[in-house]
Amino acid sequence: MTKNQNDIKCIIAVDAMGGDYAPKNVLIGALEAYNERKDFELILIGDKQKLLQVAREENILLGENMILHSSQIIEMGDTPTSALKTKPDSSIVVGAKLVKEKKAHAFVSAGNTGAMMAASTLIMGRIEGVSRPTIGASFPTSQNKFCLLFDVGASVDSKPQHLFEYAILGSIFAKEIFNSTSPSVGVLSVGEEEAKGNELSLAAHKLLKASKLNFVGNVEGRDILKGNVDVIVCDGFLGNVILKFGESILALLKSRIKDYSTKGLLNKIYALIVKKVLKVSLSDMDYQTHGGVPLLGVNGISIIGHGSSTPLAIKNMVLRAKEMYDKNLIQKFQEALKEYAV
Amino acid sequence: MTKNQNDIKCIIAVDAMGGDYAPKNVLIGALEAYNERKDFELILIGDKQKLLQVAREENILLGENMILHSSQIIEMGDTPTSALKTKPDSSIVVGAKLVKEKKAHAFVSAGNTGAMMAASTLIMGRIEGVSRPTIGASFPTSQNKFCLLFDVGASVDSKPQHLFEYAILGSIFAKEIFNSTSPSVGVLSVGEEEAKGNELSLAAHKLLKASKLNFVGNVEGRDILKGNVDVIVCDGFLGNVILKFGESILALLKSRIKDYSTKGLLNKIYALIVKKVLKVSLSDMDYQTHGGVPLLGVNGISIIGHGSSTPLAIKNMVLRAKEMYDKNLIQKFQEALKEYAV
Repeated sequence: MTKNQNDIKCIIAVDAMGGDYAPKNVLIGALEAYNERKDFELILIGDKQKLLQVAREENILLGENMILHSSQIIEMGDTPTSALKTKPDSSIVVGAKLVKEKKAHAFVSAGNTGAMMAASTLIMGRIEGVSRPTIGASFPTSQNKFCLLFDVGASVDSKPQHLFEYAILGSIFAKEIFNSTSPSVGVLSVGEEEAKGNELSLAAHKLLKASKLNFVGNVEGRDILKGNVDVIVCDGFLGNVILKFGESILALLKSRIKDYSTKGLLNKIYALIVKKVLKVSLSDMDYQTHGGVPLLGVNGISIIGHGSSTPLAIKNMVLRAKEMYDKNLIQKFQEALKEYAV
Repeated sequence: MTKNQNDIKCIIAVDAMGGDYAPKNVLIGALEAYNERKDFELILIGDKQKLLQVAREENILLGENMILHSSQIIEMGDTPTSALKTKPDSSIVVGAKLVKEKKAHAFVSAGNTGAMMAASTLIMGRIEGVSRPTIGASFPTSQNKFCLLFDVGASVDSKPQHLFEYAILGSIFAKEIFNSTSPSVGVLSVGEEEAKGNELSLAAHKLLKASKLNFVGNVEGRDILKGNVDVIVCDGFLGNVILKFGESILALLKSRIKDYSTKGLLNKIYALIVKKVLKVSLSDMDYQTHGGVPLLGVNGISIIGHGSSTPLAIKNMVLRAKEMYDKNLIQKFQEALKEYAV
């Protein structure tokens, strides 16, 4: 591991105005990460007066020196690319610029996802060899390790070359963050046989098979939760649908257990036990606690969170940013893209 | 409802050689359906001597007159289209021909899915106005009604016109079989906004919006299990991945609960309760008991089952075929395709 960057103290910028419960949840979560670790500098970007006011109201200890004032906010409903132009002093634009100008090493936001992707891509720029940045999602598996799926929504209508690049970025991410020694990579398809698939998956299969990656061939929808493959690549449209489908499973379970509980006293007691057990057994299925997901392929650490991020989610996003910095991930991506390029 | 067909006794042909546990499971399941209802004629297609032998061994009461001998079997690993040519006396080809020649009203098989699709499409033919037949899957929802997803694997690389046809066929199926008065139809996408989607979903959205169907616009992955829309259409590649992903959820739950149960006596007791509750609450998530899925758009009733079909699954497939016959579904598809065509 290249250690030289660690002589410089890591600086993490956080969009204090991003998310449905900002700035409150952001302040609580980011400061919790900071106070727990203290081994990085925290920059909270947002309306200074508003942040200080919320901190007072919520009894949050917040030093003025942590705040970088920005006068604008990109709202959830704003159109991403045009908002970047019309709101140059928005927290998202300011944060992405900090990373671009090397005044911060990472930027974290639970604000407008499209704007965050556009700002990261257009302002930070792409790593050489990356055609399209990608967002991955981690799925819980039967083997108690995660399966990473790329892309889950940074693009739609991905091309075979994009899937190949997702596989490179995903492999490095799985290796460094999820500690897979030699991450296996599969391409999502409708059958295990090499000849099965659609135009995109068949062409991506060929590229991956010819590469030096640990490619295991086609995998199916059922393999995502099985845990027999570390990284799965697919078109961003497909990945996004699966991610949202997966996120809705817990809601279905909860609703069914609630129905069950209304049918008598014993049912009510049993339902409480079920809730308790599932909370323990499926804790890694609760996507709210995960924090956000990194946008991989841009020239800097960019972590994007759910609009509804809890303080814990924000905290985990900041800690994930710090981990990516500590592990020199951007540099490792750069090296891998050169190494695996065909 | 057109009643004229009901003067003729319904004849259901069943592929007795299809499935991993054929002919045993097929014989048990099909005969159970027959003995329960007796309002249709049953034809069991397969190796006569083998069927009689298994019936003797398993103490299954089977009349020779129910058997239509066929000397060949399309195996699970056979290539569908070439198998149709090389095995003209296979149970799948014989069954599809019976329907084509109006010697049976429906054909049911748990054999090679690709061969069953190819035989149904090529031998029975397509209904006028159908470019590609489609397979739908029913998903359980929070509202205790099903959501139907088309296509889940009859095609890959579906075109906008195909999605439009899936919507017509799916609406009629939802209305007749799932009793939705005016089935709502959504197109699967990555956001609710009309402008969000990929090339396919955007073009399909336009076609559906201009139609007389009850189109509600874009829906997302999370809407499948919510129950707020009756029919969702998407590319067959995407649908197949979601179906298999969905089918694997119970396996993940079971594995997690098993892990939990090993951590002490109380956990073991709790786990038993959880299993009991989930079995009741998620009974409609067990895809094995559903039976098969119909291939819609072909000129006859064709029901395709899991290779691992249980006797109950086979029974339900036969009963579903009978229901489709009783409700005149093929004629209703024909009428709808004319009515909704643009």
